[in-house]
Amino acid sequence: MADIQPFHVMDLLARARALEAQGRDIVHMEIGEPDFATPVPIREAAKRALDAGRTHYTPALGLPALREAISGFYRSEYGVEVPAGRIVVTPGASGALLLALGVLVDPGDQVLMADPGYPCNRHFTRLMEGEAVGVAVGAETNYQLTAELLAANWGERSVAALLASPSNPTGTLVPQRSLCDMQAMMRARGGRLIVDEIYHGLIYDGDSRTALAVSDELFVINSFSKYFCMTGMRLGWLVAPQDYVREIDKLAQNIFLAAPTISQHAALAAFEPATRAILDEQREAFRARRDFLLPALRELGFDIPCTPQGAFYLYADCSRFSDDSAAFANELLEQAGVAVTPGKDFGANAPSRHLRFAYTTSMRKLEMGVERLAGYLSNVRRG
Amino acid sequence: MADIQPFHVMDLLARARALEAQGRDIVHMEIGEPDFATPVPIREAAKRALDAGRTHYTPALGLPALREAISGFYRSEYGVEVPAGRIVVTPGASGALLLALGVLVDPGDQVLMADPGYPCNRHFTRLMEGEAVGVAVGAETNYQLTAELLAANWGERSVAALLASPSNPTGTLVPQRSLCDMQAMMRARGGRLIVDEIYHGLIYDGDSRTALAVSDELFVINSFSKYFCMTGMRLGWLVAPQDYVREIDKLAQNIFLAAPTISQHAALAAFEPATRAILDEQREAFRARRDFLLPALRELGFDIPCTPQGAFYLYADCSRFSDDSAAFANELLEQAGVAVTPGKDFGANAPSRHLRFAYTTSMRKLEMGVERLAGYLSNVRRG
Repeated sequence: MADIQPFHVMDLLARARALEAQGRDIVHMEIGEPDFATPVPIREAAKRALDAGRTHYTPALGLPALREAISGFYRSEYGVEVPAGRIVVTPGASGALLLALGVLVDPGDQVLMADPGYPCNRHFTRLMEGEAVGVAVGAETNYQLTAELLAANWGERSVAALLASPSNPTGTLVPQRSLCDMQAMMRARGGRLIVDEIYHGLIYDGDSRTALAVSDELFVINSFSKYFCMTGMRLGWLVAPQDYVREIDKLAQNIFLAAPTISQHAALAAFEPATRAILDEQREAFRARRDFLLPALRELGFDIPCTPQGAFYLYADCSRFSDDSAAFANELLEQAGVAVTPGKDFGANAPSRHLRFAYTTSMRKLEMGVERLAGYLSNVRRG
Repeated sequence: MADIQPFHVMDLLARARALEAQGRDIVHMEIGEPDFATPVPIREAAKRALDAGRTHYTPALGLPALREAISGFYRSEYGVEVPAGRIVVTPGASGALLLALGVLVDPGDQVLMADPGYPCNRHFTRLMEGEAVGVAVGAETNYQLTAELLAANWGERSVAALLASPSNPTGTLVPQRSLCDMQAMMRARGGRLIVDEIYHGLIYDGDSRTALAVSDELFVINSFSKYFCMTGMRLGWLVAPQDYVREIDKLAQNIFLAAPTISQHAALAAFEPATRAILDEQREAFRARRDFLLPALRELGFDIPCTPQGAFYLYADCSRFSDDSAAFANELLEQAGVAVTPGKDFGANAPSRHLRFAYTTSMRKLEMGVERLAGYLSNVRRG
């Protein structure tokens, strides 16, 4: 347990809620889930499943119809053939990551991952008795791992590398060419790529192909939480190479039994045209927010060297204002009424110089946030 | 992964489904979930939450109102004060077990548990880098651990003991006096009891008090799956000693984020009188099934030395008919059209002499099953 860090943002969120309870107005730019509710057609599908009494367990690998629907989604959306037999429906993307690491990692094995990155990745690896090796990444590689970085950090005990495209916290993508190079390298060294595509669907420019177009030897993690706005449904999926599926089934039976049944029936409506129309409209709202917030933060003096191409995050260097981003985040909350996430939630690569801004709130709120930041920073700016 | 066994019953279930697809009629006495659908008032509450757009994450420890409702349930049902702050809502009882073991077990630590017992307990301990020590139990202790058995098996690396009352697969209870003795022993040795009460509510005779009446130093796991018939909702809870809650919060944030939101809102209706009336009626149906099946199986020649007091299982010695219960279970399925679970799913204590019968199907089906068994066994009986 000593190796597991809490999300520091949770304490900050609790403080923000306490301030709100005192009557303060807070602009929330710390929250990592869409502000949109689950689209109505998905909720209606859940209600139909409830009325029909579909309340028992599903098979551990998921409802066969949903595995087929996801397979169909890969075909229609990405032009890639992914047999339903390789698709495992999981309780959130967390469940998918747990299964992938469970079958890949033996005690002492290393998994390489980008730093900054999503902290649970590190903790899950630890939970599976493995060692997470954070590889520092910066603007020069668009905050992503490359074949060169993997080669430089690959060791005797390395078994896998974890990529996230788009990335949390940086919103950047892995170019398909770089992915091919990394997959070739893994193949040569007997390692496996795990590609986190949970922010797929929320890509505003650049390459939106799936890693599954590159190879069927890699693992892909996805989620119904972000683009599909189904966070509370706790539903994700894993695409695994065929020869791992039986082991994954065994592990899923033991750890989860199965993903929530109503959520699985609801998700069948996620791919319908009416739902997709709502989701694509919401994606455009996210894009507009990014297009507002990115230049506004740069204008204020935050350094954001790479344009985030997806997700709903901006990872900003705040060293012009502070060399202690955690203290700075507390200051911004208390003094300016703006909640953001300090860099230390994302690893050990210069966390004290960074803040993550999430644009998971309305444009009006974002404008208010920028205004408050401008007012506050004009008093403290030291740059 | 090599240490994780599959549920053998899953292969048997798959074979049963294949036979059904060929037109055979199968009596299912292998399935470990209630045949009843989730009560309508709970489903209606889920629908209201969907309509209200309650689709975002809840706090990692659970919806405050649900934690309060569970606390109220302990007060009204058991007369025990359990503050909401010690109650953690989890994705199924699996999630609760994972959290309890996560905060109690360091690498190499031992957890004592009854054999026969629920196999996931062993696998979860392994997942947390601990060692599950199965302690053989039999009719002489009602298939439960005792302070004497714990003392005889307690070692330098032992940190906890896991009890299940009612037990899966035997349906037997831990008497409150024995629980007090075990808790006193744990206190003396610095160990912790984890008490699995997921079949609470389905107790037909004997002591239905909660272990929380004995001490607030032990961990209790419970579930909305069995008595509340909410399997597909994937919702359980953990009651932990107060000083473990912050660590548990940290772990839950990382592993699950939170339990499914709609399920949590639905569960608020689980404690309402209208729901309880339905559930108590279903409990009486289970009791009637037990009261039919137990003497019927004994009459056929199965040895069931202790009367199961709860859950919906009978654990039967089948050695009069076979010394290979797995082969015998296959035979019963293929030849008699009756599906049961072989002992090897429950540990290493004489599994080849045992079968588990679940009474999770209608009385009509149970009668048909007994008739088929009688017909088949009259041909093969060797005793």
